[in-house]
Amino acid sequence: MVNAVEWKEGAVRLLDQTKLPTEVVFVDCKDVETVAKGIKDLWVRGAPAIGITAAYGIALAAMKISAKSFDDFYKQLLPSCDLLAATRPTAVNLFWAIERIKETAQAHRTEPPDALKKILLEEAHAILREDIAMNRAIGKFGAALIQKGSGVLTHCNAGALATGGYGTALGVIRSAWEVDKKIAVFADETRPVLQGARLTAWELAQDQIPVTLITDNMAGFFMKQGKIQCCVVGADRIAANGDTANKIGTYSVAILAKEHGIPFYVAAPSSTIDFNIASGDQIPIEERNHTEVTHMGGKQIAASGISIANPAFDVTPAKYITAIITDKGAFKPEELIKLKISRA
Amino acid sequence: MVNAVEWKEGAVRLLDQTKLPTEVVFVDCKDVETVAKGIKDLWVRGAPAIGITAAYGIALAAMKISAKSFDDFYKQLLPSCDLLAATRPTAVNLFWAIERIKETAQAHRTEPPDALKKILLEEAHAILREDIAMNRAIGKFGAALIQKGSGVLTHCNAGALATGGYGTALGVIRSAWEVDKKIAVFADETRPVLQGARLTAWELAQDQIPVTLITDNMAGFFMKQGKIQCCVVGADRIAANGDTANKIGTYSVAILAKEHGIPFYVAAPSSTIDFNIASGDQIPIEERNHTEVTHMGGKQIAASGISIANPAFDVTPAKYITAIITDKGAFKPEELIKLKISRA
Repeated sequence: MVNAVEWKEGAVRLLDQTKLPTEVVFVDCKDVETVAKGIKDLWVRGAPAIGITAAYGIALAAMKISAKSFDDFYKQLLPSCDLLAATRPTAVNLFWAIERIKETAQAHRTEPPDALKKILLEEAHAILREDIAMNRAIGKFGAALIQKGSGVLTHCNAGALATGGYGTALGVIRSAWEVDKKIAVFADETRPVLQGARLTAWELAQDQIPVTLITDNMAGFFMKQGKIQCCVVGADRIAANGDTANKIGTYSVAILAKEHGIPFYVAAPSSTIDFNIASGDQIPIEERNHTEVTHMGGKQIAASGISIANPAFDVTPAKYITAIITDKGAFKPEELIKLKISRA
Repeated sequence: MVNAVEWKEGAVRLLDQTKLPTEVVFVDCKDVETVAKGIKDLWVRGAPAIGITAAYGIALAAMKISAKSFDDFYKQLLPSCDLLAATRPTAVNLFWAIERIKETAQAHRTEPPDALKKILLEEAHAILREDIAMNRAIGKFGAALIQKGSGVLTHCNAGALATGGYGTALGVIRSAWEVDKKIAVFADETRPVLQGARLTAWELAQDQIPVTLITDNMAGFFMKQGKIQCCVVGADRIAANGDTANKIGTYSVAILAKEHGIPFYVAAPSSTIDFNIASGDQIPIEERNHTEVTHMGGKQIAASGISIANPAFDVTPAKYITAIITDKGAFKPEELIKLKISRA
């Protein structure tokens, strides 16, 4: 399995996912500006992978600072944190990872800057390792919910490519496959950026897990035909009440699932839950470049002289979510509060 | 307004809609085989336009027959009818138009073949003229149902390009616009063939009707935002109970509309109703070439080594349909039987 993000010889190595599935290209980011560009331009995407990338990006920026005092070091580090925080507004993991690195720096303020640089890099490594471990836990809890022989619909890519490895929604699918549940996966292609067609289908094909690619508007058809027994998606941010921001189209999938009596699961590390916001209404939705809708591979596919909308995410209200599968177990949306108590 | 299909100097002139919106190319089909290819390869699409094209295709085939007797003439005409009938399985207008031309021939069997050729061409012209008149009637009945200032969502292209002119769903939209209802149109791009992005958006832009293009998976998002007050789509075949076959994704739009309490209208000439089938379960669904999903403009956009599904249509059960807007008026699905009685 390729890594979406890793630390490689003093650089942040990103798989340029915009080139998939026809090309597998890695970019070694040697400065934080390139890391920020990589997040913004979707070389790396998926909330957990974005968080890991940002952590490494700060560690990379730290390497270049020549400061004698902590205060001086920290002051020089902050602009890089701000640069990274400004790349994508919706994924909470981005802000969470940046805060964690900043707190790590503060916690070790008595260390000399050169030692601190190593500590920050170690912390980024820890975030990556923990992410993979969390995904394996999510996978185990999720697989228990999936009936043998199920058709499982997923939307976008919440896979190894969206995380440190193994994946969240695809972690559930991988885990179910590994324990021989004999599932069949349906992958929504996920317009406009086609993460389902380009990434999820590619990732599952690499692991020999059977996958059928459909366009987003076919999901209802296959639910009605009885081919889909459950839905599993990732999350970019989950509010305290369970409302979940995820890739545009997730909300529609959840409504279709409800109408067909099919369980709808969200799989995400517990760090995706933002207890600072009471409901999904407070989650900012990123509007992306309109050429993502009007062009494909540089070719114009839509009429000229029209308006375009391109919200990158939508919010699925908690009432449509059967359970949120985390590294701490699967919870009904109204039970998330238990995680807050255990986090405190 | 360009014509999707017309009779031009002894040929069937089709607008090659696969080239839109970047190129406006007409093909003069000089034999029935080219007409059949034009239907199969989607140069012309949309149930009413397919019917008109098939009628002209038979008239064109008739021109080339040199027979002395009616029986001989008719026997030579049948293979062309069969060829055209085999192009697309779902649109009832195709079979309806072919039957109408065959019946016209039978009704004039005492005419010499050369006179009959003119009669068949006149009948094709009549089908085209009647289609436009029906669309204007549909538009008028439909516009009455649309509230001033509404956001109107449409899926695929049921416009001038899908008909003899003016359109069915887009006829309703055009008519509402003409009577100053100040509507704002949302057009689903309609993967995989992008009829919404390429055709509906283009057609409405030509008429200066405001249109916002969205990907199919954004419809729920904009309904939740309160931007969409009703949905209007076309139909490829309507069963006696009101179940409606239309472009893949229509069923999902109908469910989303129901969940948001938004009326969902089907606009179609009454000839689209197939009283020979009791319910939508009996409507065959065409499975189209998988490269429509995996490639765009010749470029591969999906992973290799995976399964693909490409049903071209789905069936929306009558229970999701607020009204079926026909040239005879708007009917609740359970009221369609009135049209059967008036047709008998």
